[in-house]
Amino acid sequence: MVRAIGIDPGSRFTGYGVVEGDGNRLVHIANGTIRLSSQVPFPERLKTIYQRLITIIDEQGPVCMAIEDVFFAKNVKSALRLGQARGAAILAGVNANLEVYEYSALQIKQAVVGYGKADKEQVSQMIQNLFMLRRKLDPNAADALAAAVCHINTRSSRMRWKILG
Amino acid sequence: MVRAIGIDPGSRFTGYGVVEGDGNRLVHIANGTIRLSSQVPFPERLKTIYQRLITIIDEQGPVCMAIEDVFFAKNVKSALRLGQARGAAILAGVNANLEVYEYSALQIKQAVVGYGKADKEQVSQMIQNLFMLRRKLDPNAADALAAAVCHINTRSSRMRWKILG
Repeated sequence: MVRAIGIDPGSRFTGYGVVEGDGNRLVHIANGTIRLSSQVPFPERLKTIYQRLITIIDEQGPVCMAIEDVFFAKNVKSALRLGQARGAAILAGVNANLEVYEYSALQIKQAVVGYGKADKEQVSQMIQNLFMLRRKLDPNAADALAAAVCHINTRSSRMRWKILG
Repeated sequence: MVRAIGIDPGSRFTGYGVVEGDGNRLVHIANGTIRLSSQVPFPERLKTIYQRLITIIDEQGPVCMAIEDVFFAKNVKSALRLGQARGAAILAGVNANLEVYEYSALQIKQAVVGYGKADKEQVSQMIQNLFMLRRKLDPNAADALAAAVCHINTRSSRMRWKILG
């Protein structure tokens, strides 16, 4: 059994999702979205992402972090902003002594939906069903849970359909 | 008098430079470059940037941080990497309770060389002369010192030529 925190980083919304499992069984522990006002100066936003994640890691006790490896962005400016938010999230992980793993969007979608070109709505719906969550998931939190599921799935090296079955 | 740390962030080389001054007088305190092997996993590199800067801030005692606000990068991928390194540097600042200030490359060049389109070599040479440094500055450390000089200059709101005169 491993407890992982998945992260979907962003300069305005950073989703997180904590999942415990071993490939045969996946349990939803927590999820949420750190929302930051565009009014707040950027360094303060990074501090908030970092500190909130440090607190969540402390409270929920994951031993590893899964984060999407981003290769695309609307433009260079948004890539720089996203990179900074992603850096803050990764630092929260490494400074809390978590092992940090990066997965491509393709790997995450394949792990969760079984189809690398699935859209965000399909990923969200699959996560919702997988954990039998009643309340509609925030899309950032859903993506974060998907990264955590991908990590546990990959780690356990069991076949995908067993996990999702 | 204020003591500022300037940062020139990068995913491989992060320059830093500590300067004390009030606009009439500028004193070089320290400079250096944090060098990271491309062999090291990216999360570890972010941790090293963060921890080295935390140590330098602790040892050198700046009360504020000046960092270049980057808007350009070779491509989206390098922007993402640079953003992450920049995020790690900013976080070291805010977590050490420094005020963090961002300056455009134009502002920094104007503050140091008096000419917004100055090239890197001119900036480096001007910093070298300004502080009468004997040893040839590493270009990343020179850019970091330039950011710190820009901050002290801007903060003091004195005329540029008085500082550089």
